[in-house]
Amino acid sequence: MDSIKSPFAPGKIEDLPVLPGVTLATAAAGIKYTGRTDLMIAVFEKGTSVAGVFTQSRCASAPVEWCRDILAAGDARILVVNSGNANAFTGLQGKNATKRTADAAANAVGCNPEQVYLASTGVIGEPLDPAPFEHLLGNLVNSCQPNIWSSVARAIMTTDTYAKVCSIKFELDGHTFTLNGIAKGAGMIAPDMATMLAFIFTDVPVSSSILQNILSDVVETSFNAITVDSDTSTSDTVLVFATGKTLPVDFKPITEPDDPRIPLLSDALSKLSINLAHQIVKDGEGARKFVEIQITGAADKVAAKKIAMSVANSPLVKTAIAGEDANWGRVVMAIGKAGEEADRDQLSIWFGDHRVAFEGERDPDYSEEAASDYMKNAEIILRADVGVGDGEATVWTCDLTKEYVAINGDYRS
Amino acid sequence: MDSIKSPFAPGKIEDLPVLPGVTLATAAAGIKYTGRTDLMIAVFEKGTSVAGVFTQSRCASAPVEWCRDILAAGDARILVVNSGNANAFTGLQGKNATKRTADAAANAVGCNPEQVYLASTGVIGEPLDPAPFEHLLGNLVNSCQPNIWSSVARAIMTTDTYAKVCSIKFELDGHTFTLNGIAKGAGMIAPDMATMLAFIFTDVPVSSSILQNILSDVVETSFNAITVDSDTSTSDTVLVFATGKTLPVDFKPITEPDDPRIPLLSDALSKLSINLAHQIVKDGEGARKFVEIQITGAADKVAAKKIAMSVANSPLVKTAIAGEDANWGRVVMAIGKAGEEADRDQLSIWFGDHRVAFEGERDPDYSEEAASDYMKNAEIILRADVGVGDGEATVWTCDLTKEYVAINGDYRS
Repeated sequence: MDSIKSPFAPGKIEDLPVLPGVTLATAAAGIKYTGRTDLMIAVFEKGTSVAGVFTQSRCASAPVEWCRDILAAGDARILVVNSGNANAFTGLQGKNATKRTADAAANAVGCNPEQVYLASTGVIGEPLDPAPFEHLLGNLVNSCQPNIWSSVARAIMTTDTYAKVCSIKFELDGHTFTLNGIAKGAGMIAPDMATMLAFIFTDVPVSSSILQNILSDVVETSFNAITVDSDTSTSDTVLVFATGKTLPVDFKPITEPDDPRIPLLSDALSKLSINLAHQIVKDGEGARKFVEIQITGAADKVAAKKIAMSVANSPLVKTAIAGEDANWGRVVMAIGKAGEEADRDQLSIWFGDHRVAFEGERDPDYSEEAASDYMKNAEIILRADVGVGDGEATVWTCDLTKEYVAINGDYRS
Repeated sequence: MDSIKSPFAPGKIEDLPVLPGVTLATAAAGIKYTGRTDLMIAVFEKGTSVAGVFTQSRCASAPVEWCRDILAAGDARILVVNSGNANAFTGLQGKNATKRTADAAANAVGCNPEQVYLASTGVIGEPLDPAPFEHLLGNLVNSCQPNIWSSVARAIMTTDTYAKVCSIKFELDGHTFTLNGIAKGAGMIAPDMATMLAFIFTDVPVSSSILQNILSDVVETSFNAITVDSDTSTSDTVLVFATGKTLPVDFKPITEPDDPRIPLLSDALSKLSINLAHQIVKDGEGARKFVEIQITGAADKVAAKKIAMSVANSPLVKTAIAGEDANWGRVVMAIGKAGEEADRDQLSIWFGDHRVAFEGERDPDYSEEAASDYMKNAEIILRADVGVGDGEATVWTCDLTKEYVAINGDYRS
């Protein structure tokens, strides 16, 4: 099925700046698609640090298990990603496919298999034939270029309606560094499933253990703060690679947990991650609206996020937003079902600047017309104060439309 | 919006047998609807025991809070239920409305307000005017009849497409007793929300505390084992009333927790509750298929139910079923995200008798054609063994169709 392009799709995908220490290549391996690229590699110079965060699924894919196993060493020379087949729920065959791919990539680059990072997205339960990788990787490594970021972003798309890229510059000790990121999600084609992949690259010299701590924090308020349909893929993967290859002569690598430059790096990584996370939600199946859910006044930030996710995942809230209906009753319901402390008689709810409920009752000054007008916007902010503490959280989601059902239902009858 | 009748709607709603100790009446109070009844009462003879289970929502409605407060006394003389207004999120006004309604009902029957049980379903956030109750209840109590069960079931409907009733007979000590039940759910009209109400009546002489224990158990595998869209109402209520009014001369009331007749009563209540619960799911918004999810091989029954609910609430599983697609990959995904122990490499999945996955891989004998044929049935059984223990659970849900989005989206644009 051809998906209708998201209303949030940008007109043109800007290419990203060259990132010292990283070169890229793509190929059309014919894994499932024809007439498009479906394989990408990123080759790193020696000494590249790596950090990763993966799906919480108990049925993780073979490449996720592979990456988890090698992550402790924290040393990356190549990333190999294919679309069209997730290599998930493929048993021993799947494990063999990752091993053979890692061996072939290691041969091509001249490194250990434990320095090869893998990710796959696409059909589940279909055995992944590693032969194309074995044939292609040697040539691919030799054809790498530094400036084809939008091409590699396109190679990892499944039913994404646009490629997702982002780059930001930031300063540490007066030196300018770069973060480049590409992502895919949350498209799917039967019998596929949504997968979120994000790969981030920087030239900052930073140790793997510090990078891992920063990433684990940042993910909580970016990639783990978005939801399209509450479903969790077997393959979700975020990897950050730090080449350290623009190391200025007088720049001391970041290796100690109390380094004062860590918050600056974390901030930059957070901005990039939130940007990519928003792009994923804006390309959610059938999405026509982008929704920011802000919860304040919860017992703590964990409670606030749980309440925010309960609202963001509620089919009734999401269908109301699709219908441009300022249905605050459903927001009350979703807050109530979250199971976290909330003071019904102190609860207040806003759509944008329109306060629709105040202290546990319909706001006496509530204008349904004004609120309904606001709901016509493509980007909606929904805020609720639950009246018990100082906990705050923000998450992002999209509306639930008939197109979502059509895309995922694939009515055969 | 007029809802299309559920494909599971019965041709004719059978009336239920007279239940000694219970009389019924309905009225058109004009709370929201015109041209239909929206108020029902059931009047009980003295000595009627009562047990109840209510929503887990932290934003419970005023009548739910009222019932919770009086339940400890365990003594009921009248049940008053209205449709059209949920009296939820109505602050102090809502509390006053329940008090005034309870006072009026107590006056009409000649009992204490603490013997008056209340439930409301319909619009949220709209103040409920108690005046119609005060005017009508005296006459209603005088006009009660024993044989209008289907009429009272109709009076509590909101966007239900059919009235839900069930009756079963069972034997204790050689005497035949009756359980009558009525229920509503899970319909909604913007800006309403789904509410599940069930009221069950029996002539068995049983103490309130024993009845409460039985009900709390039974609800776990009946009303709490169904889901239409994972959303929890502010008003969900199940009440069981036991009049004890066909007490045979030699029948000893059930008052001790080790009474050997308790499992028999529990069994009968379970059968009735499951029947009503299924009727609610079959009338789920936009539902075209009824789905039984069976999980076996989990760590324990709590884990099994959590996995089963993760599958039953997955929008990707539910849209696949709507599309008659035997998409077992999405079942793997939903099992994986439940967060409970599952052995990916022992996982097996069946649609009906068609085993589609076996020991962590696609079943080698899997026929997509045969499985797809099975998916055309109106009633689907989806079974998964997660391969770690003896825990089992069964839950029920419906498919997720474009009609669900249409009913709840109320596209205004």
